[in-house]
Amino acid sequence: MPTAHLYTDAEAAAHPRVAAVFADIRATRNSDFINNFWRALANQPALLERTWASLKEVMVAPGTLDPLTKELIYIAVSTINACTYCIHSHTAAARAKGMSDDQHAELLAVIGMASETNAIANALQIPVDPEFQVT
Amino acid sequence: MPTAHLYTDAEAAAHPRVAAVFADIRATRNSDFINNFWRALANQPALLERTWASLKEVMVAPGTLDPLTKELIYIAVSTINACTYCIHSHTAAARAKGMSDDQHAELLAVIGMASETNAIANALQIPVDPEFQVT
Amino acid sequence: MPTAHLYTDAEAAAHPRVAAVFADIRATRNSDFINNFWRALANQPALLERTWASLKEVMVAPGTLDPLTKELIYIAVSTINACTYCIHSHTAAARAKGMSDDQHAELLAVIGMASETNAIANALQIPVDPEFQVT
Amino acid sequence: MPTAHLYTDAEAAAHPRVAAVFADIRATRNSDFINNFWRALANQPALLERTWASLKEVMVAPGTLDPLTKELIYIAVSTINACTYCIHSHTAAARAKGMSDDQHAELLAVIGMASETNAIANALQIPVDPEFQVT
Amino acid sequence: MPTAHLYTDAEAAAHPRVAAVFADIRATRNSDFINNFWRALANQPALLERTWASLKEVMVAPGTLDPLTKELIYIAVSTINACTYCIHSHTAAARAKGMSDDQHAELLAVIGMASETNAIANALQIPVDPEFQVT
Amino acid sequence: MPTAHLYTDAEAAAHPRVAAVFADIRATRNSDFINNFWRALANQPALLERTWASLKEVMVAPGTLDPLTKELIYIAVSTINACTYCIHSHTAAARAKGMSDDQHAELLAVIGMASETNAIANALQIPVDPEFQVT
Repeated sequence: MPTAHLYTDAEAAAHPRVAAVFADIRATRNSDFINNFWRALANQPALLERTWASLKEVMVAPGTLDPLTKELIYIAVSTINACTYCIHSHTAAARAKGMSDDQHAELLAVIGMASETNAIANALQIPVDPEFQVT
Repeated sequence: MPTAHLYTDAEAAAHPRVAAVFADIRATRNSDFINNFWRALANQPALLERTWASLKEVMVAPGTLDPLTKELIYIAVSTINACTYCIHSHTAAARAKGMSDDQHAELLAVIGMASETNAIANALQIPVDPEFQVT
Repeated sequence: MPTAHLYTDAEAAAHPRVAAVFADIRATRNSDFINNFWRALANQPALLERTWASLKEVMVAPGTLDPLTKELIYIAVSTINACTYCIHSHTAAARAKGMSDDQHAELLAVIGMASETNAIANALQIPVDPEFQVT
Repeated sequence: MPTAHLYTDAEAAAHPRVAAVFADIRATRNSDFINNFWRALANQPALLERTWASLKEVMVAPGTLDPLTKELIYIAVSTINACTYCIHSHTAAARAKGMSDDQHAELLAVIGMASETNAIANALQIPVDPEFQVT
Repeated sequence: MPTAHLYTDAEAAAHPRVAAVFADIRATRNSDFINNFWRALANQPALLERTWASLKEVMVAPGTLDPLTKELIYIAVSTINACTYCIHSHTAAARAKGMSDDQHAELLAVIGMASETNAIANALQIPVDPEFQVT
Repeated sequence: MPTAHLYTDAEAAAHPRVAAVFADIRATRNSDFINNFWRALANQPALLERTWASLKEVMVAPGTLDPLTKELIYIAVSTINACTYCIHSHTAAARAKGMSDDQHAELLAVIGMASETNAIANALQIPVDPEFQVT
């Protein structure tokens, strides 16, 4: 159960700012599906507008990282932050962008390996080698 | 200051199992540089051997994700786990594998965006849409 | 499913130390409702007593932060620690203490913004400005 | 040491988009001081602009939570995310907005208490009481 | 719902590498029960083999920490990482290895106490006493 | 640098409640050394008293877990919470209570292994086996 109301399509249609974002999500994704994350954010139009605008800029606009790579990074962050919703939504998004079963499995291996060495390095409080200085 | 001793080259040379791993690190990376992480793990040869073997399998062996993508994922995980050492070592590794300043900046944008939506989705306890079910 | 037994009212009544804490919770909150957190802690009377005493001192006793502000902070911590139970219980508590929908939405915006900049600052390993030194 | 270059004032002045954000930070805060976070973000003007615009909207624009309360929430999130830089910068900001030593101490007590019960509730996997359902 | 397929016994039997690991799990544990973690890892035989080999080396092979102590540590880590699955599986494993209700309760008390002081120490950014230096 | 003042012995002596806790720490530990954690908590006598009382009850009072096991669990939690101060103070405490280098190395192996499987299990969102139900 969520801690805030999830807007139905009818409720969204009654709020112009929410309706405008929902329309842009549908147009940008070329799909009628609005997932629950946006239906929950609809409670605060300003947060809804800002979050969707940022997501479009970060995840949709062309850049130097390809869309699938950005989804893999998103899954990695969501996993360590233990965000069940985000793990599911971005794993689905990555598959929709072409992630193969083998790529998913390799992603898991890297996430697991990094978590293992992160914990060991933190427990050992290993001093940073001066060779890593890049600036 | 670390919580365990860092092996010098002379100390490593005196322990055959440690010496063998250090030699393989040098050969695999084609560099004489052994970073502090391995010098700290040298206190437990079994952990040193297993960790290096896993890292070679996960990060060095060819697969369906390219080496730079794996480094970007590693940085993302290390950032959320707040591992100072690992953030530095893998940012340096990513640069050595060709990460540009623009790619680094986009990586940061994705990590930040994911962390923001992770927190909001968790605070809202948003139920997973059935459309995300993939199995 | 929990990893320990949840005490029913009948079971609590049969253990004097548990019964005493349950009675104090009811008296302090002026409500007959005992939520599952305390029913699970009842397995260890010492932990139950100490945790309830601390909670009364920290969250109920008057101080320089008002009760609603303390609940907002509690939600923020629970969100980053990904504690589903605590997010629900303290969001309900905050609403009972007067949190409006707009305040909830602003809370989410701050939690999200902080998480985003936390991740970016950690990834960049930004040195602390000496101007921030306060002691 | 940071993982990216920190822009000096001279370097910022040479990049119009960076210079514009730095000027707005100075005008908004009515202070000449630009802290290192923004000097590091200057490497990516788009991220710098978006992050500053969001921060102004979330932390500076008037709303239903007062500025000090928002800083306390920011400190709480930064603490759990183990962001050394953010803990320092937002503790300084909270003091500048009037946080007393007693309020700081109470904030710590709430953060500590929440972390303790978060861990216990997660370890016990306590089921959410239906009474907490708010939607 | 998982984000990858869970292998049935029939599917495992059809993949020699998966079948071999499942057989070794059964032989090592002297039980026919294969829990879902391994059924999910079966999608990537290399990750399955490596993870099981590591788990046998770390958790099953004799060492200087007894098996129950290692399970308690595993529960502690899983709790802070908010891994619902791992909390359940390792709490069950600890009980199977003799963890009493009192030991479970003391474990919770230590995990809670550590989380509380971790948060307070991080919020205060307390400098490490030179007396703690051990190397 | 800390975010609050560290009490010197002279300052502590001037505050009766602080002086009483410091005296009890010294008597309990049979040592004149007061580490910085308590010197920072001295800013809030109530928090200082409550935290020390809890620590004595959880870590010092006899129970069903031996003192060294409790320190190992404390290190594990502190590592995942990325608390530099606590990792150092409790690693030193564990050594003082007899932790050998081999035990430290095995502790690291368990912490690393748990973190790896936690991340993989979370990324896979593996459903909990009904066999793990214990209540």
